[in-house]
Amino acid sequence: MPISIDLAFAFQMDKPTDVLLQFEAAMIPEQRLLETDTWVTKGEHFARIPAQDAIGERVWIRAEGRYDVTYTATVAVERMPADVARLERLRPHELPGEAVQYLFDSRYCPADRFQQFVEAEFGSVDGGARIAAIRDWIANGFTYAPGSSTSNTTALDSFIERRGICRDYAHVMVMLARASGIPARFVSCFAPDVTPQDFHAVAEVFLTDPTTPGGGAWFLVDATEMARAEEIVKIGVGRDAADVSFMTSFGPADFIEKSVSVERRPDPHAHNGRAGE
Amino acid sequence: MPISIDLAFAFQMDKPTDVLLQFEAAMIPEQRLLETDTWVTKGEHFARIPAQDAIGERVWIRAEGRYDVTYTATVAVERMPADVARLERLRPHELPGEAVQYLFDSRYCPADRFQQFVEAEFGSVDGGARIAAIRDWIANGFTYAPGSSTSNTTALDSFIERRGICRDYAHVMVMLARASGIPARFVSCFAPDVTPQDFHAVAEVFLTDPTTPGGGAWFLVDATEMARAEEIVKIGVGRDAADVSFMTSFGPADFIEKSVSVERRPDPHAHNGRAGE
Amino acid sequence: MPISIDLAFAFQMDKPTDVLLQFEAAMIPEQRLLETDTWVTKGEHFARIPAQDAIGERVWIRAEGRYDVTYTATVAVERMPADVARLERLRPHELPGEAVQYLFDSRYCPADRFQQFVEAEFGSVDGGARIAAIRDWIANGFTYAPGSSTSNTTALDSFIERRGICRDYAHVMVMLARASGIPARFVSCFAPDVTPQDFHAVAEVFLTDPTTPGGGAWFLVDATEMARAEEIVKIGVGRDAADVSFMTSFGPADFIEKSVSVERRPDPHAHNGRAGE
Amino acid sequence: MPISIDLAFAFQMDKPTDVLLQFEAAMIPEQRLLETDTWVTKGEHFARIPAQDAIGERVWIRAEGRYDVTYTATVAVERMPADVARLERLRPHELPGEAVQYLFDSRYCPADRFQQFVEAEFGSVDGGARIAAIRDWIANGFTYAPGSSTSNTTALDSFIERRGICRDYAHVMVMLARASGIPARFVSCFAPDVTPQDFHAVAEVFLTDPTTPGGGAWFLVDATEMARAEEIVKIGVGRDAADVSFMTSFGPADFIEKSVSVERRPDPHAHNGRAGE
Repeated sequence: MPISIDLAFAFQMDKPTDVLLQFEAAMIPEQRLLETDTWVTKGEHFARIPAQDAIGERVWIRAEGRYDVTYTATVAVERMPADVARLERLRPHELPGEAVQYLFDSRYCPADRFQQFVEAEFGSVDGGARIAAIRDWIANGFTYAPGSSTSNTTALDSFIERRGICRDYAHVMVMLARASGIPARFVSCFAPDVTPQDFHAVAEVFLTDPTTPGGGAWFLVDATEMARAEEIVKIGVGRDAADVSFMTSFGPADFIEKSVSVERRPDPHAHNGRAGE
Repeated sequence: MPISIDLAFAFQMDKPTDVLLQFEAAMIPEQRLLETDTWVTKGEHFARIPAQDAIGERVWIRAEGRYDVTYTATVAVERMPADVARLERLRPHELPGEAVQYLFDSRYCPADRFQQFVEAEFGSVDGGARIAAIRDWIANGFTYAPGSSTSNTTALDSFIERRGICRDYAHVMVMLARASGIPARFVSCFAPDVTPQDFHAVAEVFLTDPTTPGGGAWFLVDATEMARAEEIVKIGVGRDAADVSFMTSFGPADFIEKSVSVERRPDPHAHNGRAGE
Repeated sequence: MPISIDLAFAFQMDKPTDVLLQFEAAMIPEQRLLETDTWVTKGEHFARIPAQDAIGERVWIRAEGRYDVTYTATVAVERMPADVARLERLRPHELPGEAVQYLFDSRYCPADRFQQFVEAEFGSVDGGARIAAIRDWIANGFTYAPGSSTSNTTALDSFIERRGICRDYAHVMVMLARASGIPARFVSCFAPDVTPQDFHAVAEVFLTDPTTPGGGAWFLVDATEMARAEEIVKIGVGRDAADVSFMTSFGPADFIEKSVSVERRPDPHAHNGRAGE
Repeated sequence: MPISIDLAFAFQMDKPTDVLLQFEAAMIPEQRLLETDTWVTKGEHFARIPAQDAIGERVWIRAEGRYDVTYTATVAVERMPADVARLERLRPHELPGEAVQYLFDSRYCPADRFQQFVEAEFGSVDGGARIAAIRDWIANGFTYAPGSSTSNTTALDSFIERRGICRDYAHVMVMLARASGIPARFVSCFAPDVTPQDFHAVAEVFLTDPTTPGGGAWFLVDATEMARAEEIVKIGVGRDAADVSFMTSFGPADFIEKSVSVERRPDPHAHNGRAGE
């Protein structure tokens, strides 16, 4: 069933400021954009550049005063669900070069410090089973608590306090996967059933499916258990939230408002088909 | 004058362990490898992959027991020195896509937290003059103190304590450049005159030279003032030290020893050539 | 002129919970309590204990459900103002034993890490002149920004980000004083002109007045510049905010509301008295 | 059996510097000093002050150049061992005022952040049984690793990395006890069987023995399992290591050397007595 997205946000800058935005559904094989419409305030500059790993686009703007963004889209997600627990890991030296960076520590994910912990807690399982065990450990042990974290909160902080929002759940998932030697990246996305409605974030791990030919691939994992892989609309990916913030300002910018609505949209053609029965 | 490098290090693993190494002079236009020789212990695996930004190579090994690495090279550096203070910045939206990731926070460089500081301390200058001011501020205010930092030390820690080693100086340089909206990356390298002799690390910033055509380029900056751009032999680059450690182990590995020697080597052909004049 | 205080706050606990409160003007020689009235919800327990350094009292309560506190007081502050810049330091070995703990690092004030910084930035002055220089450095360089800090924010964080609220200003003041070898403690207080109206926090340093006999004494310093020593009504003191929170809960407690009003109250007797002369 | 202590250490200061030392066995009822001898380099000042909670003494010195300390003592420890698991907690409002400060966060023990963790991990037990469970959790899960921590390492760091030395084990013990609402302090001490031989550190928790009359008391807990309560010679106590460092320097001081030897000494009188049998 297609996913429809309605997004609007606005911010204010007192002087001309460069801002990097990334808020649109990525045009990638696994999700088909049926319709999209982006509207922004006219500013001094507006330039699109490819985003990380060629997934989605970033938009540079330069503007002053109030800046409004609205975006609507309908997206058909054609991603197959996978039982992550059945996936297997690649040995590090089998990883493609572009996955290697996702083994390293990043701003919010100091993974190297958690090698002892993952070995002690999850040492009996590996590969996809390890990932599933980490996901369940987070899902069962953490409290989803809007307002409990800030833009400075790291996965280490969330690990300690056992609470956070989707961003924090994804960071802990990414950190503990990397500490296990499994490449993991952070995915900014839209998904239905996210409560409260907002941008969503999940982790993506690089594993291999033993039942299909070929090397490894990226598989989505949502430790919040709010979104299913076959309904996630990816915006972009990065090492962690520092890379795929929907808005990164190079100078003071005051956030004014944001509204996000993500819904499953009954497909009219499917309906028509049934009408003939 | 060519630079000759003699490197040897060894480590010990009690069980089969994957280790990522990056210790060789990169084969890139600005430095010509006159001769190189790499010798390593024979292990279960040895695989080369391109390193970050296609600068240099990483080596995956998988081995058990003692593992020795020796490397010798002679390199002709053909990089032109630049007066960084005369360089200019590009507006963010003019940056090439591949430079944008170097504006973001990374493991050891939480740049966003320093936007107020750089504005207050260096707000009167911009571009290359800003970079030169930051470099001098570090060089004058910091104490070079081997043993004062660990692998967990961040640029924030070094900023507070005003001391560190080359890695820490480079991290602070990278962090304050990014906080100024100037892309900056971390460079692992060899250089003569580094005291005590060891791997060296410097920063590299993305600026543009107003006297030459074309867009921006990367320029080396060494806040320790120990190395000159025209004598630096690059090994690799990354967002920070997390990306270009000479050895990243995915399991316990005990470091045993390391020796590094980097010398200027008089070029015999140059001497003979002059003799004939 | 007497200071009148009107305070009310409430919180909610889902099960019987121990909570430590400290919210009343301290009964100490330098401030005379003209009238006070404390009203609290009846709970399972209510017990008073002396607070740190015998300044003020803490109240233990144990209760469930909604808990309300209201407090009104009128206080005549009889503290003499002092020009902190003219005060002198005691040599550490001259300090009374009870001041020594205020040289040590505490939860929010990792002072030892700032010894290099204070030496570099304020090394030319000592004693009260050093304290005045630190106070002015904070007052001029920091932005008062409600909402910019949380209960986890340390003086190190505030030092980096150059912003915060009264609690953060006091923490940085305390930290840099201790890094200078001058005992400093954190003071929770009420004061008029605090904007927005709330509990206030300032620092207190242990120095000596060369023009008066006797050893050292504690002197108030407010880096926010919102309160004057002769109008500050002390609630309690501690090493930092961890010791004098107005509410420390040993179990989940949801804060509901708080209102604070602090006013100068013209003294009717003083006026009448003068009229009769 | 009496414990004999031989201690020597030395440090160097390039200019006159104030240093606070705390290295002698405390004169307290539970341990009898049979003989002691303290010898220090003659400096500008030497002054004794009572240490925290009146347990032991601190020594202020002011000196320049090399400074040597030697200390020998023989101590009869008369502390009764206690099975901590059978002890009970006091309700917070039953705690004596002087124990309350040991519920609060301190420099190295940010306990408030661990309330969720202790509830999740140890929620089924309370009082002494909780303390025993925490002690065993540390003893079983942590690796004793000399060199793995520095003077900046907090209990949060040690909790993450699951390793450290006695100081770190004691910090984690103190932190998780406080997070459980049980007062806990840090004890600097001497003990036989500490490997490698050095100053030792343990935790002390405030509980009550249900089989004896009276209120609460402090009970020693050593998560390293190297020392037994009836053989521990206390030097001093504090909120954490920031309060009872054996040497706190208010200016640059270079540590030169340290040797510690702690032995059980057969009591000659006991031997003679037996000889007569």
